[in-house]
Amino acid sequence: MVKKNLYTISMLAAVTLFSAACTATKQQDMGGVQTNVNTPKNIIMVISDGMGPAYTTAYRLYKDDPNTPMVELTALDPFLVGTARTYPASVSGYVTDSAASATALSAGIKTYNGAIGLDVDKKPLESVLQRAKKVGKKTGVAVTSQIVHATPAAYIAHNESRNNYNEIADSFLDDRINNKNVADVMLGGGWSYFIRDDRNLVNEFKALGYQYADSYTDLLALPKGKPTLGLFADKGLSKALDDTNPHRLSVLTESAISQLENVNGYFLLVEASQVDWAGHANDIASAMGEMEDLEQTIKLLKNYVDMHPDTLVVLTADHSTGGLTIGADGEYRWSPEFIQNMKASVTVMSEKMTDEEDMVLYVEDVFGFALNGDEKNLISGMSSDMKPAERESVLKSILDKRTNTGWTTSGHTGVDVEVYAFGAGSQAFAGNLNNTDIANKIFAFLGKAE
Amino acid sequence: MVKKNLYTISMLAAVTLFSAACTATKQQDMGGVQTNVNTPKNIIMVISDGMGPAYTTAYRLYKDDPNTPMVELTALDPFLVGTARTYPASVSGYVTDSAASATALSAGIKTYNGAIGLDVDKKPLESVLQRAKKVGKKTGVAVTSQIVHATPAAYIAHNESRNNYNEIADSFLDDRINNKNVADVMLGGGWSYFIRDDRNLVNEFKALGYQYADSYTDLLALPKGKPTLGLFADKGLSKALDDTNPHRLSVLTESAISQLENVNGYFLLVEASQVDWAGHANDIASAMGEMEDLEQTIKLLKNYVDMHPDTLVVLTADHSTGGLTIGADGEYRWSPEFIQNMKASVTVMSEKMTDEEDMVLYVEDVFGFALNGDEKNLISGMSSDMKPAERESVLKSILDKRTNTGWTTSGHTGVDVEVYAFGAGSQAFAGNLNNTDIANKIFAFLGKAE
Repeated sequence: MVKKNLYTISMLAAVTLFSAACTATKQQDMGGVQTNVNTPKNIIMVISDGMGPAYTTAYRLYKDDPNTPMVELTALDPFLVGTARTYPASVSGYVTDSAASATALSAGIKTYNGAIGLDVDKKPLESVLQRAKKVGKKTGVAVTSQIVHATPAAYIAHNESRNNYNEIADSFLDDRINNKNVADVMLGGGWSYFIRDDRNLVNEFKALGYQYADSYTDLLALPKGKPTLGLFADKGLSKALDDTNPHRLSVLTESAISQLENVNGYFLLVEASQVDWAGHANDIASAMGEMEDLEQTIKLLKNYVDMHPDTLVVLTADHSTGGLTIGADGEYRWSPEFIQNMKASVTVMSEKMTDEEDMVLYVEDVFGFALNGDEKNLISGMSSDMKPAERESVLKSILDKRTNTGWTTSGHTGVDVEVYAFGAGSQAFAGNLNNTDIANKIFAFLGKAE
Repeated sequence: MVKKNLYTISMLAAVTLFSAACTATKQQDMGGVQTNVNTPKNIIMVISDGMGPAYTTAYRLYKDDPNTPMVELTALDPFLVGTARTYPASVSGYVTDSAASATALSAGIKTYNGAIGLDVDKKPLESVLQRAKKVGKKTGVAVTSQIVHATPAAYIAHNESRNNYNEIADSFLDDRINNKNVADVMLGGGWSYFIRDDRNLVNEFKALGYQYADSYTDLLALPKGKPTLGLFADKGLSKALDDTNPHRLSVLTESAISQLENVNGYFLLVEASQVDWAGHANDIASAMGEMEDLEQTIKLLKNYVDMHPDTLVVLTADHSTGGLTIGADGEYRWSPEFIQNMKASVTVMSEKMTDEEDMVLYVEDVFGFALNGDEKNLISGMSSDMKPAERESVLKSILDKRTNTGWTTSGHTGVDVEVYAFGAGSQAFAGNLNNTDIANKIFAFLGKAE
């Protein structure tokens, strides 16, 4: 019943969106095609790192109610407007990494794999976040990785390598001192890069007037409308399946918005960072857990845009990860029911299971289904000197076989990714775009700085 | 230079499409959302069987001119309007076969895998082709499979199993005699089902007034505007890489249109049937060859719609095949240059290579690049009792490794597929659709029969 209502609401939303797009289109009759009609005051760019088309379909099936004849729509589906091409600068071939694609999405320029906000000649590029700051908006990032990871870094910093985490963290602070365009709000992980033996950037940010939180509870208690740094983990946040709040991205997003709202508007980057990490690990259960956090965030943003129609939300991925396929090995089947009741990620299971008296019972309890004979043998046959990563591989192989999930790589793949948009100006993102077009359309909305 | 011009033309086409969609949208202001504005006189439904999102991206990269900084667009790209959900009726799980998906696309109803034009209770369903016939339009199919294969069959026939090829062929003829809605034009393969010991359907069709051709040359010489049966192979046509005309689908399509054009309009199903077959075989070179024939067909149809703006073209896939991924095995690379100069398919190579004096030289000649030591050993080490299919597997493994192509299955996968549309009424197909929506939107254009 709840699902049916959500479906109805989604369909109404889709109709509303279509109507809104038509209205906006009419307004621009004299202005040519896809120009700045319906310019948004607030822009929220959502990147679901690694979310190729197989992820969005898989997630829909994962959430399906098998008691209804049709597969229910996700909160994303009504807002699909097109797809995006992800390839990097030709020097890096056809398969992008997250740094080059984040730079394309943030600055509108194709660059080499590894580059943070630099072009192929290592020249610094202005990002849409930096432009937004220049034109008087507040700016922020809310991510589930460390906040110095490739995607958020490409909106804030410039560095020849994504791996220079400490340098990137330093630049966040130093650029703030130099009155450059670092974000007003930064929420995610990263203690290990901000609280170091050689420098305590948290204290330095506090000295610059930033309020600071290191727990979700503290974050929610902060006064609103202020520069805010929130770090909640050494590196990335806990996986959605393991976190105290499986919807932590939506918590960070809601908090970031409350800090950023002001009369001039804001630009906010939201990243579901760990869809990609689950893809690299070929971990279908975690991939779906991260997608669920993303969907919760999109639901939140949909409600926000209903109340604040001057806000634009664009959602896309930077690339696909893992070569995920829905079905494998010649069998026309995908069975998400085997990952719908996971109580923890396979990573946490692989660390904890050796403390258990009966590993088979433990795995059955956390998986939420009874193991068959072969699976029991795999678990009980684990030798005591097996490393956690090896145990994790066994657990993943059981889930892949049960669900009939396919993977081809621990890296990225080159397939076009989906683009979703709603709110003010969303019609500009329709069709098959280059990932750089997305930044350039946002630049057009922001206009030039004085 | 040619590519640059095509790019410019494509971009102009995209702008034209957008303007046309806006015009159409304005016309329907009083009529609600996505109703029958701009109703097309002619409807051309193009199904690229098995063409998941990885295929369209891979093909763009395959056709890229590496001497330009950006990847050139394909003829499909400017017309992307959304995506479609492909799952079959719940009795068959989440991964569809081509019969269920063809029935969804032809009749607007989800059914079980294997069903040709029947619902889950085996009740016959009206197809859009049959409705078109009822409302006075001419109808046709032009495909590269046998014309009794699942996809075309689901537009013309009703059968509880796609495998009953002879029964389906019989029904084509018998339904014509019974004044039902069989197609006026049928072009593709299928001698073995139409010219049998027990029945010669070709002669029977001739007796009903059909003209007949069994070669592309004869087909082009036929008088226009007449019922036409054209069969060009025992089962499916030769692969694009091996056929006398690698663009045979565009030849069949152009011919079908010339036979169908009339004052009341027509419905034509075009199927690039063998993208799917290449996917099942995990044969990346043939997949790209079939995509090239599809692109040629879309170019032809784009020119046709420019001259006949009362025509709608919708292109989608019924599902994805093979679990194709652009990159594999941890490497951020896809290298289509190794399949851009193929002189024959790996299937034909595997049959012919044992007749060659030097198999290594032969493979190098047909592949178009020099083999390395390991590859030479693989070829020269082939034992004489190896079957062609085994030799073919070796050839494919070389190409997969060179190109870094990934596959996960010999069957289908469940990922959403892309939807492209242009011409009259094309705006109705925007967003994320169910595959059944596509039939239902076409039904809405056709209206009810008397």
